[in-house]
Amino acid sequence: MESFFSFLERRVDDSSSLLCVGLDPHIPDLIGADGHSPTAASALDFCLNLVKQTAPYAAAFKPNAAFFEVFGADGWAALKQVIDAIHEESNRLGSKIPIILDAKRGDIASTAEAYAKSAFENLGVDCITLSPYLGKDSIEPFIKNQEKGVFLLCKTSNPGSGDLQDLTVDRGRWMDETKQSTVNGQRSMPLYEYVAHLAQQWNTKNNIGLVVGATHTDAMKRVRAAAPDLWFLVPGVGTQGGDLESAMRAGLGQDGRGMLINVSRSIARADNPKRAAAEMRDQILEIRSSMFGKR
Amino acid sequence: MESFFSFLERRVDDSSSLLCVGLDPHIPDLIGADGHSPTAASALDFCLNLVKQTAPYAAAFKPNAAFFEVFGADGWAALKQVIDAIHEESNRLGSKIPIILDAKRGDIASTAEAYAKSAFENLGVDCITLSPYLGKDSIEPFIKNQEKGVFLLCKTSNPGSGDLQDLTVDRGRWMDETKQSTVNGQRSMPLYEYVAHLAQQWNTKNNIGLVVGATHTDAMKRVRAAAPDLWFLVPGVGTQGGDLESAMRAGLGQDGRGMLINVSRSIARADNPKRAAAEMRDQILEIRSSMFGKR
Repeated sequence: MESFFSFLERRVDDSSSLLCVGLDPHIPDLIGADGHSPTAASALDFCLNLVKQTAPYAAAFKPNAAFFEVFGADGWAALKQVIDAIHEESNRLGSKIPIILDAKRGDIASTAEAYAKSAFENLGVDCITLSPYLGKDSIEPFIKNQEKGVFLLCKTSNPGSGDLQDLTVDRGRWMDETKQSTVNGQRSMPLYEYVAHLAQQWNTKNNIGLVVGATHTDAMKRVRAAAPDLWFLVPGVGTQGGDLESAMRAGLGQDGRGMLINVSRSIARADNPKRAAAEMRDQILEIRSSMFGKR
Repeated sequence: MESFFSFLERRVDDSSSLLCVGLDPHIPDLIGADGHSPTAASALDFCLNLVKQTAPYAAAFKPNAAFFEVFGADGWAALKQVIDAIHEESNRLGSKIPIILDAKRGDIASTAEAYAKSAFENLGVDCITLSPYLGKDSIEPFIKNQEKGVFLLCKTSNPGSGDLQDLTVDRGRWMDETKQSTVNGQRSMPLYEYVAHLAQQWNTKNNIGLVVGATHTDAMKRVRAAAPDLWFLVPGVGTQGGDLESAMRAGLGQDGRGMLINVSRSIARADNPKRAAAEMRDQILEIRSSMFGKR
């Protein structure tokens, strides 16, 4: 059995790409020239077009569950159709493209089992984004099959990410009021870095990665140091303001891989999404080339 | 406009109940005598029966999204039908019963907007459970309308909850390697308690509560001290092993309210769910009575 990240790396090599194409059918993007209210059908059309145009340049696709859920049962059916269309496009290209469901789920184990079944068996995706807040037993149902992967939220791209993720934590758990830490003498670190250490330690099957926003370059450096072996899923380039080159210099692995750069709106809203995806793929390769002399 | 928690308190008084009935159509519970594989239709029947039997004793209902998502589009349609059935039951009783969608979502603001629209407008629930890991801007789309509420995950009932939630944090953010905290001289605390302080501070519209598991009595005491005004949604009684009386002694508010005790499996799997719900409601009232001399 191939681990999820071996599968991803095969596609990265096949496509010479570190680009993840986000499938976020935001309602404002779906309002047609006729001004009709968007429906699940318009979300589906929007995504099918994006998949068809960008597949050759996509190391992975990332549909975002929220923008389908918002259309109820019809939206959920559309999400399934988008996933099926990616499978067909993979067959046509002769190179399987991993699908990451951006769902940011996180629940106790019996509930997590149901979410895992929903994502991996029913929808048929390969990977899912998860929140780490509930701890390891909430992650386990998703990683027990090494062919399926997860990206744990670590340092997110949004302005409020610091509210919890930047808190200073000790290496160790709270015990009582008089004793600050169970492990004394170890250095403190921000919470997101602690999560990176946990993920590095939990990743015994090569199927755990981290979500690290391009909007926080210093944080990305720290996360890379804490988790040298892990793949990062990197949102925040483009519309959200993250600088691609700074992010890559901070986060790329020593083998020139390890970062999946997600781009959603700047491709979806381009006049020519196919060209926008090709250009973004090439821009990423050029930066990598300038860093490693490798393409 | 009435705030979410004023609405909940009205129902708590109407029903003389602090019981939240969890609607978790776990697959093993759906396998009928004929041994057929469960479907969305069996999940729907299971929930409609529970709603009908337990509504008079329910201060709130809490459907868990995972157990509907696992049936795909049909499951999502069933979830909507369950919610509609609760609205009808409320009309029949002449007392509106709040519906809390247990979804534990948490995403950046533009995505959170879509999740909020899905839950509050399309499904028609009154409240949702959320993860705090992404910070305040990820919560805001859900709380801007004071009629709608959220319960933020604080200290969850699962064994792995300590992995992150019990970490010792300083009151202040990580700045650099040489400076541990931006706010020196303040005491440290576990992460879950910090989340409680944040929630208490963010709750300007009386529509933020906290999820605090009954399985951690000491943690519940700390959370109550940190957030004296907030409602707790309390899972973990029954199947998960939390002791009801200890939890209530640790978490009940000074007005004898402030805790919504969630029970799912012990009611759903009872021979007579109606009687099980009535007994649980009464048991909660008796404990409260022994504490306050109030019923």
